[in-house]
Amino acid sequence: MNTIFIIGVGLIGGSFALDIKKLHPESTIFGIDNNEAHLDEAIELKIIDQKAKFEDLEKADLVILAIPVDATLTILPKVLDHVSDNAIVFDAGSTKEDICFSVKNHPKRRNYLAVHPIAGTEHSGPKAAIHNLYKSKTNIICEVEDTAFKLQERALELFSELGMRIRYMNPKAHDKHIAYVSHLSHISAFMLGKTVIDKERNERDIFDMAGSGFESTVRLAKSSPAMWAPIFKQNKTNVIETLDEYISNLKHFKTLMEDGDFDAVFEEMETTNHIKDILNGIQ
Amino acid sequence: MNTIFIIGVGLIGGSFALDIKKLHPESTIFGIDNNEAHLDEAIELKIIDQKAKFEDLEKADLVILAIPVDATLTILPKVLDHVSDNAIVFDAGSTKEDICFSVKNHPKRRNYLAVHPIAGTEHSGPKAAIHNLYKSKTNIICEVEDTAFKLQERALELFSELGMRIRYMNPKAHDKHIAYVSHLSHISAFMLGKTVIDKERNERDIFDMAGSGFESTVRLAKSSPAMWAPIFKQNKTNVIETLDEYISNLKHFKTLMEDGDFDAVFEEMETTNHIKDILNGIQ
Repeated sequence: MNTIFIIGVGLIGGSFALDIKKLHPESTIFGIDNNEAHLDEAIELKIIDQKAKFEDLEKADLVILAIPVDATLTILPKVLDHVSDNAIVFDAGSTKEDICFSVKNHPKRRNYLAVHPIAGTEHSGPKAAIHNLYKSKTNIICEVEDTAFKLQERALELFSELGMRIRYMNPKAHDKHIAYVSHLSHISAFMLGKTVIDKERNERDIFDMAGSGFESTVRLAKSSPAMWAPIFKQNKTNVIETLDEYISNLKHFKTLMEDGDFDAVFEEMETTNHIKDILNGIQ
Repeated sequence: MNTIFIIGVGLIGGSFALDIKKLHPESTIFGIDNNEAHLDEAIELKIIDQKAKFEDLEKADLVILAIPVDATLTILPKVLDHVSDNAIVFDAGSTKEDICFSVKNHPKRRNYLAVHPIAGTEHSGPKAAIHNLYKSKTNIICEVEDTAFKLQERALELFSELGMRIRYMNPKAHDKHIAYVSHLSHISAFMLGKTVIDKERNERDIFDMAGSGFESTVRLAKSSPAMWAPIFKQNKTNVIETLDEYISNLKHFKTLMEDGDFDAVFEEMETTNHIKDILNGIQ
Protein backbone atom coordinates (compact mmCIF):
# COMPACT_ATOMS: atom_id res chain seq x y z
CA MET A 1 0.00 0.00 0.00
CA ASN A 2 2.17 2.79 -1.24
CA THR A 3 -0.28 5.13 -2.83
CA ILE A 4 -3.02 6.35 -0.60
CA PHE A 5 -5.78 8.83 -1.36
CA ILE A 6 -7.70 10.64 1.30
CA ILE A 7 -10.89 12.25 0.03
CA GLY A 8 -11.93 14.81 2.60
CA VAL A 9 -8.93 15.95 4.65
CA GLY A 10 -10.77 16.83 7.87
CA LEU A 11 -10.88 15.26 11.30
CA ILE A 12 -11.65 11.71 10.12
CA GLY A 13 -9.67 11.55 6.88
CA GLY A 14 -6.79 13.54 8.30
CA SER A 15 -6.49 11.30 11.35
CA PHE A 16 -6.34 8.22 9.10
CA ALA A 17 -3.63 9.94 7.06
CA LEU A 18 -1.50 10.78 10.09
CA ASP A 19 -1.53 7.23 11.45
CA ILE A 20 -1.00 5.60 8.07
CA LYS A 21 2.00 7.81 7.34
CA LYS A 22 3.47 6.90 10.70
CA LEU A 23 2.91 3.17 10.12
CA HIS A 24 4.07 3.32 6.50
CA PRO A 25 6.53 6.19 6.07
CA GLU A 26 7.29 4.97 2.55
CA SER A 27 3.74 5.63 1.37
CA THR A 28 2.62 8.75 -0.47
CA ILE A 29 -0.55 10.33 0.77
CA PHE A 30 -2.63 12.28 -1.72
CA GLY A 31 -5.46 14.53 -0.70
CA ILE A 32 -8.64 15.42 -2.56
CA ASP A 33 -11.01 18.00 -1.14
CA ASN A 34 -13.43 20.52 -2.58
CA ASN A 35 -12.08 22.99 -0.06
CA GLU A 36 -8.78 24.24 -1.48
CA ALA A 37 -7.84 25.97 1.78
CA HIS A 38 -8.21 22.68 3.65
CA LEU A 39 -5.88 21.00 1.19
CA ASP A 40 -3.24 23.70 1.71
CA GLU A 41 -3.69 23.42 5.45
CA ALA A 42 -3.37 19.62 5.27
CA ILE A 43 -0.08 19.94 3.39
CA GLU A 44 1.20 22.48 5.85
CA LEU A 45 0.25 20.26 8.78
CA LYS A 46 1.99 17.32 7.01
CA ILE A 47 -1.27 15.39 6.93
CA ILE A 48 -0.96 14.79 3.18
CA ASP A 49 2.03 14.84 0.87
CA GLN A 50 0.31 16.20 -2.22
CA LYS A 51 -2.95 17.44 -3.66
CA ALA A 52 -4.57 15.25 -6.28
CA LYS A 53 -7.53 14.95 -8.67
CA PHE A 54 -10.03 12.20 -9.33
CA GLU A 55 -8.11 11.28 -12.51
CA ASP A 56 -5.11 10.36 -10.34
CA LEU A 57 -7.12 7.69 -8.53
CA GLU A 58 -6.12 5.04 -11.09
CA LYS A 59 -2.79 4.67 -9.29
CA ALA A 60 -4.36 4.30 -5.83
CA ASP A 61 -3.76 1.26 -3.62
CA LEU A 62 -6.14 2.59 -0.99
CA VAL A 63 -8.80 5.28 -1.07
CA ILE A 64 -10.49 6.56 2.08
CA LEU A 65 -13.63 8.66 1.74
CA ALA A 66 -14.23 10.88 4.72
CA ILE A 67 -16.77 13.39 3.50
CA PRO A 68 -20.38 14.20 4.46
CA VAL A 69 -22.63 11.20 3.84
CA ASP A 70 -24.72 12.98 1.18
CA ALA A 71 -21.58 13.71 -0.84
CA THR A 72 -20.52 10.08 -0.46
CA LEU A 73 -23.61 8.98 -2.40
CA THR A 74 -22.30 10.69 -5.53
CA ILE A 75 -18.55 10.62 -4.93
CA LEU A 76 -18.23 6.92 -4.05
CA PRO A 77 -19.50 5.65 -7.44
CA LYS A 78 -17.25 8.20 -9.13
CA VAL A 79 -14.25 6.95 -7.15
CA LEU A 80 -15.02 3.35 -8.07
CA ASP A 81 -15.22 4.42 -11.73
CA HIS A 82 -11.64 5.66 -11.51
CA VAL A 83 -9.79 3.08 -9.41
CA SER A 84 -7.97 0.00 -10.66
CA ASP A 85 -9.05 -3.56 -9.89
CA ASN A 86 -6.49 -3.76 -7.12
CA ALA A 87 -7.56 -0.74 -5.13
CA ILE A 88 -9.47 -0.96 -1.89
CA VAL A 89 -11.89 1.89 -1.25
CA PHE A 90 -13.62 2.45 2.05
CA ASP A 91 -15.77 5.23 3.46
CA ALA A 92 -16.15 6.29 7.08
CA GLY A 93 -19.74 7.48 7.04
CA SER A 94 -22.06 7.37 10.02
CA THR A 95 -24.84 5.88 7.87
CA LYS A 96 -24.51 2.71 5.84
CA GLU A 97 -27.80 1.72 4.18
CA ASP A 98 -28.04 4.42 1.51
CA ILE A 99 -24.31 4.40 0.88
CA CYS A 100 -24.22 0.63 0.29
CA PHE A 101 -27.28 0.97 -1.92
CA SER A 102 -25.58 3.68 -4.02
CA VAL A 103 -22.97 1.19 -5.28
CA LYS A 104 -25.01 -2.00 -5.08
CA ASN A 105 -24.81 -2.60 -8.81
CA HIS A 106 -21.55 -0.83 -9.50
CA PRO A 107 -19.20 -3.02 -11.58
CA LYS A 108 -16.44 -2.31 -9.06
CA ARG A 109 -18.63 -3.03 -5.98
CA ARG A 110 -16.06 -5.61 -4.86
CA ASN A 111 -13.43 -2.89 -4.51
CA TYR A 112 -15.52 -1.16 -1.84
CA LEU A 113 -15.71 -1.89 1.89
CA ALA A 114 -18.47 -0.19 3.90
CA VAL A 115 -16.93 1.04 7.14
CA HIS A 116 -17.97 3.11 10.12
CA PRO A 117 -15.20 3.81 12.62
CA ILE A 118 -16.84 4.83 15.90
CA ALA A 119 -14.33 7.56 16.57
CA GLY A 120 -14.20 11.29 16.42
CA THR A 121 -14.26 14.46 18.42
CA GLU A 122 -16.56 17.46 18.30
CA HIS A 123 -13.95 19.36 16.25
CA SER A 124 -13.65 19.44 12.47
CA GLY A 125 -11.31 20.38 9.63
CA PRO A 126 -7.64 19.43 9.04
CA LYS A 127 -6.52 21.04 12.30
CA ALA A 128 -8.77 18.61 14.17
CA ALA A 129 -6.85 15.59 12.80
CA ILE A 130 -4.91 13.72 15.50
CA HIS A 131 -2.75 10.66 15.88
CA ASN A 132 -4.24 7.52 17.43
CA LEU A 133 -7.84 8.63 16.99
CA TYR A 134 -8.76 5.08 16.02
CA LYS A 135 -6.82 3.20 18.65
CA SER A 136 -9.02 0.78 20.64
CA LYS A 137 -12.09 2.07 18.83
CA THR A 138 -14.84 -0.04 17.34
CA ASN A 139 -14.97 -0.29 13.58
CA ILE A 140 -18.24 -1.48 12.11
CA ILE A 141 -18.01 -3.18 8.74
CA CYS A 142 -21.12 -3.82 6.68
CA GLU A 143 -21.71 -6.27 3.81
CA VAL A 144 -18.18 -7.64 4.14
CA GLU A 145 -19.09 -10.54 1.88
CA ASP A 146 -19.57 -8.12 -1.03
CA THR A 147 -15.93 -7.05 -0.95
CA ALA A 148 -13.20 -9.01 -2.74
CA PHE A 149 -11.44 -11.28 -0.26
CA LYS A 150 -7.94 -9.99 -0.96
CA LEU A 151 -9.07 -6.40 -0.55
CA GLN A 152 -10.98 -7.18 2.66
CA GLU A 153 -7.77 -8.64 3.98
CA ARG A 154 -5.75 -5.56 3.15
CA ALA A 155 -8.23 -3.24 4.86
CA LEU A 156 -8.46 -5.48 7.92
CA GLU A 157 -4.69 -5.51 8.20
CA LEU A 158 -4.71 -1.71 8.29
CA PHE A 159 -7.49 -1.62 10.91
CA SER A 160 -5.51 -4.08 12.97
CA GLU A 161 -2.39 -1.91 12.73
CA LEU A 162 -4.50 1.05 13.86
CA GLY A 163 -5.62 -0.95 16.90
CA MET A 164 -9.32 -1.10 16.01
CA ARG A 165 -11.87 -3.71 17.09
CA ILE A 166 -13.96 -5.05 14.22
CA ARG A 167 -17.70 -5.75 14.32
CA TYR A 168 -19.72 -7.00 11.36
CA MET A 169 -23.33 -5.88 10.87
CA ASN A 170 -25.79 -5.44 8.07
CA PRO A 171 -26.39 -1.83 6.97
CA LYS A 172 -30.02 -1.78 8.15
CA ALA A 173 -29.15 -2.91 11.68
CA HIS A 174 -26.20 -0.52 11.75
CA ASP A 175 -28.34 2.48 10.90
CA LYS A 176 -31.01 1.53 13.42
CA HIS A 177 -28.65 1.00 16.37
CA ILE A 178 -26.36 3.92 15.60
CA ALA A 179 -29.40 6.22 15.64
CA TYR A 180 -29.72 5.42 19.35
CA VAL A 181 -26.12 5.50 20.50
CA SER A 182 -24.82 8.29 18.31
CA HIS A 183 -27.31 10.29 16.27
CA LEU A 184 -29.78 10.87 19.13
CA SER A 185 -26.95 12.00 21.44
CA HIS A 186 -26.08 14.72 18.97
CA ILE A 187 -29.64 16.04 18.75
CA SER A 188 -29.98 15.83 22.51
CA ALA A 189 -26.84 17.96 22.91
CA PHE A 190 -27.74 20.45 20.18
CA MET A 191 -31.21 21.02 21.60
CA LEU A 192 -29.86 21.29 25.15
CA GLY A 193 -27.45 23.94 23.93
CA LYS A 194 -30.24 25.73 22.10
CA THR A 195 -32.55 25.67 25.13
CA VAL A 196 -29.91 27.20 27.36
CA ILE A 197 -28.71 29.81 24.85
CA ASP A 198 -32.28 30.87 24.09
CA LYS A 199 -32.95 31.41 27.75
CA GLU A 200 -29.71 32.93 28.83
CA ARG A 201 -29.34 35.92 26.55
CA ASN A 202 -26.75 37.20 28.94
CA GLU A 203 -24.07 34.66 28.18
CA ARG A 204 -22.04 35.70 31.13
CA ASP A 205 -24.60 33.89 33.27
CA ILE A 206 -24.07 30.63 31.43
CA PHE A 207 -20.34 31.06 31.57
CA ASP A 208 -20.35 31.61 35.29
CA MET A 209 -22.83 28.98 36.38
CA ALA A 210 -22.14 26.14 34.01
CA GLY A 211 -19.96 23.37 35.32
CA SER A 212 -18.25 20.34 33.85
CA GLY A 213 -21.54 18.42 33.86
CA PHE A 214 -23.15 20.85 31.45
CA GLU A 215 -19.99 21.01 29.37
CA SER A 216 -19.96 17.24 29.01
CA THR A 217 -23.66 16.92 28.18
CA VAL A 218 -23.60 19.69 25.60
CA ARG A 219 -20.19 18.91 24.10
CA LEU A 220 -21.55 17.37 20.90
CA ALA A 221 -23.38 20.63 20.10
CA LYS A 222 -20.00 21.84 18.87
CA SER A 223 -20.11 19.27 16.05
CA SER A 224 -20.14 20.23 12.39
CA PRO A 225 -23.64 20.88 10.98
CA ALA A 226 -22.29 20.21 7.47
CA MET A 227 -21.47 16.67 8.59
CA TRP A 228 -24.56 16.06 10.68
CA ALA A 229 -27.47 17.46 8.65
CA PRO A 230 -26.84 14.88 5.88
CA ILE A 231 -26.57 12.08 8.46
CA PHE A 232 -29.97 12.99 9.89
CA LYS A 233 -31.38 13.18 6.37
CA GLN A 234 -30.09 9.75 5.40
CA ASN A 235 -31.12 8.13 8.65
CA LYS A 236 -34.37 10.08 8.93
CA THR A 237 -36.74 7.22 9.77
CA ASN A 238 -34.58 5.73 12.50
CA VAL A 239 -33.64 9.09 13.99
CA ILE A 240 -37.28 10.22 14.14
CA GLU A 241 -38.10 6.98 15.96
CA THR A 242 -35.40 7.63 18.57
CA LEU A 243 -36.60 11.22 18.95
CA ASP A 244 -40.17 10.03 19.50
CA GLU A 245 -39.02 7.73 22.28
CA TYR A 246 -36.72 10.31 23.82
CA ILE A 247 -39.43 12.99 23.82
CA SER A 248 -41.90 10.51 25.26
CA ASN A 249 -39.48 9.63 28.09
CA LEU A 250 -38.89 13.32 28.83
CA LYS A 251 -42.64 13.99 28.88
CA HIS A 252 -43.17 11.08 31.25
CA PHE A 253 -40.48 12.44 33.56
CA LYS A 254 -42.12 15.85 33.44
CA THR A 255 -45.53 14.35 34.26
CA LEU A 256 -44.08 12.55 37.27
CA MET A 257 -42.66 15.88 38.45
CA GLU A 258 -45.93 17.71 37.84
CA ASP A 259 -47.75 15.01 39.82
CA GLY A 260 -45.24 15.47 42.62
CA ASP A 261 -44.38 11.76 42.43
CA PHE A 262 -40.73 12.09 43.37
CA ASP A 263 -40.49 8.45 44.41
CA ALA A 264 -41.16 7.60 40.80
CA VAL A 265 -38.66 10.28 39.69
CA PHE A 266 -36.11 8.56 41.94
CA GLU A 267 -37.01 5.18 40.43
CA GLU A 268 -36.54 6.48 36.89
CA MET A 269 -33.03 7.59 37.70
CA GLU A 270 -32.20 4.53 39.81
CA THR A 271 -33.10 2.21 36.91
CA THR A 272 -31.01 4.18 34.45
CA ASN A 273 -28.07 4.39 36.86
CA HIS A 274 -27.36 0.89 35.68
CA ILE A 275 -25.80 2.60 32.64
CA LYS A 276 -22.67 2.91 34.80
CA ASP A 277 -21.88 -0.75 34.21
CA ILE A 278 -22.55 -0.49 30.51
CA LEU A 279 -20.33 2.57 30.18
CA ASN A 280 -17.57 1.00 32.22
CA GLY A 281 -17.50 -1.57 29.48
CA ILE A 282 -16.92 1.14 26.87
CA GLN A 283 -13.89 2.68 28.48
CA MET B 1 -10.48 27.41 62.16
CA ASN B 2 -9.34 24.39 64.07
CA THR B 3 -12.50 22.43 64.54
CA ILE B 4 -14.33 21.53 61.39
CA PHE B 5 -17.46 19.47 60.97
CA ILE B 6 -18.46 17.86 57.71
CA ILE B 7 -22.07 16.72 57.64
CA GLY B 8 -22.38 14.23 54.81
CA VAL B 9 -19.01 12.67 54.03
CA GLY B 10 -19.60 11.94 50.33
CA LEU B 11 -18.16 13.43 47.15
CA ILE B 12 -18.85 17.08 48.04
CA GLY B 13 -18.26 17.05 51.80
CA GLY B 14 -15.33 14.65 51.52
CA SER B 15 -13.62 16.76 48.88
CA PHE B 16 -13.92 19.85 51.10
CA ALA B 17 -12.44 17.84 53.97
CA LEU B 18 -9.46 16.64 51.95
CA ASP B 19 -8.49 20.12 50.79
CA ILE B 20 -9.07 21.77 54.17
CA LYS B 21 -6.91 19.20 55.93
CA LYS B 22 -4.16 19.80 53.41
CA LEU B 23 -4.39 23.58 53.82
CA HIS B 24 -4.72 23.39 57.60
CA PRO B 25 -3.02 20.24 58.87
CA GLU B 26 -3.51 21.43 62.43
CA SER B 27 -7.28 21.27 62.18
CA THR B 28 -9.43 18.39 63.37
CA ILE B 29 -12.08 17.23 60.96
CA PHE B 30 -15.18 15.64 62.43
CA GLY B 31 -17.68 13.75 60.33
CA ILE B 32 -21.43 13.35 60.83
CA ASP B 33 -23.39 11.07 58.53
CA ASN B 34 -26.48 8.92 58.88
CA ASN B 35 -24.62 6.23 56.98
CA GLU B 36 -22.30 4.59 59.52
CA ALA B 37 -20.45 2.65 56.82
CA HIS B 38 -19.63 5.91 55.04
CA LEU B 39 -18.20 7.34 58.26
CA ASP B 40 -15.96 4.30 58.71
CA GLU B 41 -14.90 4.53 55.09
CA ALA B 42 -14.18 8.26 55.48
CA ILE B 43 -11.92 7.57 58.47
CA GLU B 44 -10.14 4.79 56.63
CA LEU B 45 -9.61 7.07 53.61
CA LYS B 46 -8.30 9.78 55.97
CA ILE B 47 -11.06 12.14 54.86
CA ILE B 48 -12.14 12.79 58.45
CA ASP B 49 -10.29 12.40 61.73
CA GLN B 50 -13.24 11.36 63.90
CA LYS B 51 -16.92 10.61 63.94
CA ALA B 52 -19.10 13.07 65.81
CA LYS B 53 -22.67 13.82 66.91
CA PHE B 54 -24.85 16.90 66.61
CA GLU B 55 -24.18 17.62 70.32
CA ASP B 56 -20.49 18.09 69.48
CA LEU B 57 -21.28 20.96 67.11
CA GLU B 58 -21.00 23.51 69.93
CA LYS B 59 -17.21 23.37 69.54
CA ALA B 60 -17.28 23.87 65.76
CA ASP B 61 -15.48 26.75 64.03
CA LEU B 62 -16.83 25.69 60.66
CA VAL B 63 -19.66 23.36 59.63
CA ILE B 64 -20.16 22.24 56.04
CA LEU B 65 -23.46 20.60 55.10
CA ALA B 66 -23.15 18.39 52.06
CA ILE B 67 -26.27 16.28 52.15
CA PRO B 68 -29.31 15.94 49.86
CA VAL B 69 -31.22 19.21 49.66
CA ASP B 70 -34.38 17.80 51.25
CA ALA B 71 -32.39 16.71 54.30
CA THR B 72 -30.78 20.17 54.45
CA LEU B 73 -34.20 21.72 55.09
CA THR B 74 -34.45 19.92 58.45
CA ILE B 75 -30.76 19.48 59.33
CA LEU B 76 -29.63 23.07 58.72
CA PRO B 77 -31.94 24.59 61.41
CA LYS B 78 -30.86 21.81 63.76
CA VAL B 79 -27.19 22.59 63.12
CA LEU B 80 -27.76 26.28 63.77
CA ASP B 81 -29.49 25.33 67.05
CA HIS B 82 -26.28 23.63 68.17
CA VAL B 83 -23.45 25.89 67.00
CA SER B 84 -21.84 28.72 68.96
CA ASP B 85 -22.06 32.37 67.92
CA ASN B 86 -18.63 32.14 66.35
CA ALA B 87 -19.25 29.27 64.00
CA ILE B 88 -19.75 29.67 60.29
CA VAL B 89 -22.09 27.14 58.70
CA PHE B 90 -22.50 26.73 54.98
CA ASP B 91 -24.28 24.22 52.79
CA ALA B 92 -23.39 23.12 49.27
CA GLY B 93 -26.84 22.41 47.90
CA SER B 94 -27.82 22.76 44.26
CA THR B 95 -30.98 24.67 45.24
CA LYS B 96 -31.03 27.82 47.33
CA GLU B 97 -34.53 29.29 47.61
CA ASP B 98 -36.16 26.70 49.92
CA ILE B 99 -32.98 26.26 51.93
CA CYS B 100 -32.61 29.98 52.59
CA PHE B 101 -36.30 30.11 53.47
CA SER B 102 -35.91 27.27 55.98
CA VAL B 103 -33.67 29.41 58.20
CA LYS B 104 -35.04 32.84 57.31
CA ASN B 105 -36.21 33.51 60.87
CA HIS B 106 -33.72 31.34 62.70
CA PRO B 107 -32.08 33.25 65.60
CA LYS B 108 -28.69 32.11 64.27
CA ARG B 109 -29.40 33.02 60.63
CA ARG B 110 -26.29 35.22 60.65
CA ASN B 111 -24.12 32.16 61.26
CA TYR B 112 -25.23 30.66 57.95
CA LEU B 113 -23.89 31.31 54.45
CA ALA B 114 -25.88 29.94 51.49
CA VAL B 115 -23.38 28.43 49.06
CA HIS B 116 -23.46 26.44 45.83
CA PRO B 117 -20.08 25.31 44.58
CA ILE B 118 -20.45 24.43 40.90
CA ALA B 119 -18.28 21.38 41.15
CA GLY B 120 -18.70 17.66 41.26
CA THR B 121 -18.42 14.47 39.31
CA GLU B 122 -20.97 11.80 38.46
CA HIS B 123 -19.63 9.63 41.30
CA SER B 124 -20.80 9.60 44.91
CA GLY B 125 -19.85 8.45 48.41
CA PRO B 126 -16.60 8.94 50.37
CA LYS B 127 -14.56 7.10 47.74
CA ALA B 128 -15.58 9.76 45.22
CA ALA B 129 -13.94 12.53 47.29
CA ILE B 130 -10.90 14.03 45.59
CA HIS B 131 -8.34 16.78 46.16
CA ASN B 132 -8.71 20.05 44.23
CA LEU B 133 -12.32 19.43 43.24
CA TYR B 134 -13.06 23.10 43.88
CA LYS B 135 -10.02 24.63 42.24
CA SER B 136 -10.96 27.26 39.62
CA LYS B 137 -14.63 26.44 40.07
CA THR B 138 -17.43 28.96 40.45
CA ASN B 139 -18.96 29.30 43.89
CA ILE B 140 -22.34 30.96 44.03
CA ILE B 141 -23.18 32.71 47.27
CA CYS B 142 -26.73 33.82 48.02
CA GLU B 143 -28.05 36.39 50.49
CA VAL B 144 -24.52 37.26 51.57
CA GLU B 145 -25.82 40.32 53.40
CA ASP B 146 -27.69 38.07 55.84
CA THR B 147 -24.47 36.53 57.15
CA ALA B 148 -22.39 38.14 59.88
CA PHE B 149 -19.53 40.09 58.34
CA LYS B 150 -16.75 38.36 60.28
CA LEU B 151 -18.13 34.95 59.37
CA GLN B 152 -18.55 35.89 55.69
CA GLU B 153 -14.92 36.87 55.73
CA ARG B 154 -13.82 33.56 57.20
CA ALA B 155 -15.74 31.56 54.60
CA LEU B 156 -14.46 33.73 51.76
CA GLU B 157 -10.91 33.26 52.94
CA LEU B 158 -11.39 29.50 52.75
CA PHE B 159 -12.95 29.70 49.26
CA SER B 160 -10.03 31.82 48.17
CA GLU B 161 -7.55 29.26 49.53
CA LEU B 162 -9.44 26.59 47.61
CA GLY B 163 -9.05 28.62 44.43
CA MET B 164 -12.75 29.30 43.83
CA ARG B 165 -14.32 32.20 41.91
CA ILE B 166 -17.14 33.88 43.81
CA ARG B 167 -20.43 35.07 42.30
CA TYR B 168 -23.25 36.66 44.30
CA MET B 169 -26.88 36.05 43.36
CA ASN B 170 -30.25 36.02 44.99
CA PRO B 171 -31.69 32.54 45.67
CA LYS B 172 -34.58 32.94 43.20
CA ALA B 173 -32.27 33.86 40.31
CA HIS B 174 -29.87 31.10 41.31
CA ASP B 175 -32.56 28.42 41.19
CA LYS B 176 -33.91 29.66 37.88
CA HIS B 177 -30.55 29.79 36.06
CA ILE B 178 -29.16 26.62 37.57
CA ALA B 179 -32.22 24.74 36.32
CA TYR B 180 -30.99 25.47 32.79
CA VAL B 181 -27.27 24.88 33.09
CA SER B 182 -27.31 22.01 35.53
CA HIS B 183 -30.62 20.42 36.41
CA LEU B 184 -31.86 20.09 32.83
CA SER B 185 -28.54 18.54 31.72
CA HIS B 186 -29.06 15.79 34.26
CA ILE B 187 -32.57 14.97 33.08
CA SER B 188 -31.42 15.12 29.48
CA ALA B 189 -28.68 12.59 30.26
CA PHE B 190 -30.88 10.30 32.37
CA MET B 191 -33.59 10.17 29.71
CA LEU B 192 -31.05 9.63 26.94
CA GLY B 193 -29.65 6.71 28.92
CA LYS B 194 -33.16 5.36 29.50
CA THR B 195 -34.10 5.64 25.82
CA VAL B 196 -31.04 3.71 24.72
CA ILE B 197 -31.24 1.04 27.43
CA ASP B 198 -34.95 0.47 26.75
CA LYS B 199 -34.24 -0.06 23.09
CA GLU B 200 -31.06 -2.01 23.30
CA ARG B 201 -31.98 -4.97 25.48
CA ASN B 202 -28.88 -6.65 24.24
CA GLU B 203 -26.38 -4.46 26.02
CA ARG B 204 -23.54 -5.85 24.04
CA ASP B 205 -24.81 -3.77 21.13
CA ILE B 206 -24.58 -0.56 23.13
CA PHE B 207 -21.18 -1.50 24.39
CA ASP B 208 -19.85 -2.16 20.93
CA MET B 209 -21.36 0.76 19.06
CA ALA B 210 -21.25 3.55 21.60
CA GLY B 211 -18.37 5.96 21.30
CA SER B 212 -16.98 8.75 23.39
CA GLY B 213 -19.71 11.10 22.18
CA PHE B 214 -22.45 8.98 23.69
CA GLU B 215 -20.37 8.44 26.81
CA SER B 216 -19.96 12.18 27.28
CA THR B 217 -23.60 13.02 26.64
CA VAL B 218 -24.93 10.35 28.96
CA ARG B 219 -22.29 10.71 31.68
CA LEU B 220 -24.54 12.52 34.15
CA ALA B 221 -26.95 9.55 34.10
CA LYS B 222 -24.50 7.92 36.50
CA SER B 223 -25.32 10.55 39.12
CA SER B 224 -26.86 9.71 42.48
CA PRO B 225 -30.71 9.59 42.41
CA ALA B 226 -30.72 10.16 46.20
CA MET B 227 -29.07 13.52 45.57
CA TRP B 228 -31.02 14.47 42.46
CA ALA B 229 -34.64 13.53 43.19
CA PRO B 230 -34.78 16.08 46.06
CA ILE B 231 -33.17 18.76 43.86
CA PHE B 232 -35.85 18.27 41.21
CA LYS B 233 -38.50 18.35 43.92
CA GLN B 234 -37.24 21.60 45.41
CA ASN B 235 -36.72 23.26 42.05
CA LYS B 236 -39.85 21.78 40.51
CA THR B 237 -41.30 24.90 38.90
CA ASN B 238 -38.08 26.01 37.25
CA VAL B 239 -37.12 22.52 36.13
CA ILE B 240 -40.54 21.88 34.58
CA GLU B 241 -40.15 25.16 32.68
CA THR B 242 -36.78 24.08 31.28
CA LEU B 243 -38.21 20.67 30.37
CA ASP B 244 -41.10 22.33 28.53
CA GLU B 245 -38.67 24.38 26.48
CA TYR B 246 -36.32 21.47 25.86
CA ILE B 247 -39.17 19.18 24.75
CA SER B 248 -40.54 21.94 22.54
CA ASN B 249 -37.13 22.40 20.87
CA LEU B 250 -36.81 18.65 20.31
CA LYS B 251 -40.30 18.49 18.82
CA HIS B 252 -39.50 21.37 16.51
CA PHE B 253 -36.32 19.62 15.36
CA LYS B 254 -38.35 16.45 14.75
CA THR B 255 -40.95 18.37 12.74
CA LEU B 256 -38.22 19.88 10.56
CA MET B 257 -36.92 16.37 9.92
CA GLU B 258 -40.41 15.01 9.18
CA ASP B 259 -40.96 17.87 6.73
CA GLY B 260 -37.66 17.00 5.09
CA ASP B 261 -36.44 20.56 5.69
CA PHE B 262 -32.79 19.72 6.21
CA ASP B 263 -31.68 23.26 5.43
CA ALA B 264 -33.56 24.29 8.55
CA VAL B 265 -32.05 21.33 10.44
CA PHE B 266 -28.64 22.63 9.39
CA GLU B 267 -29.58 26.14 10.53
CA GLU B 268 -30.70 24.88 13.95
CA MET B 269 -27.30 23.30 14.50
CA GLU B 270 -25.34 26.16 12.97
CA THR B 271 -26.95 28.63 15.35
CA THR B 272 -26.25 26.48 18.37
CA ASN B 273 -22.67 25.84 17.27
CA HIS B 274 -22.00 29.23 18.73
CA ILE B 275 -21.97 27.40 22.08
CA LYS B 276 -18.33 26.61 21.28
CA ASP B 277 -17.33 30.12 22.23
CA ILE B 278 -19.41 30.06 25.38
CA LEU B 279 -17.92 26.75 26.45
CA ASN B 280 -14.41 27.88 25.66
CA GLY B 281 -15.06 30.47 28.31
CA ILE B 282 -15.86 27.76 30.86
CA GLN B 283 -12.69 25.80 30.48
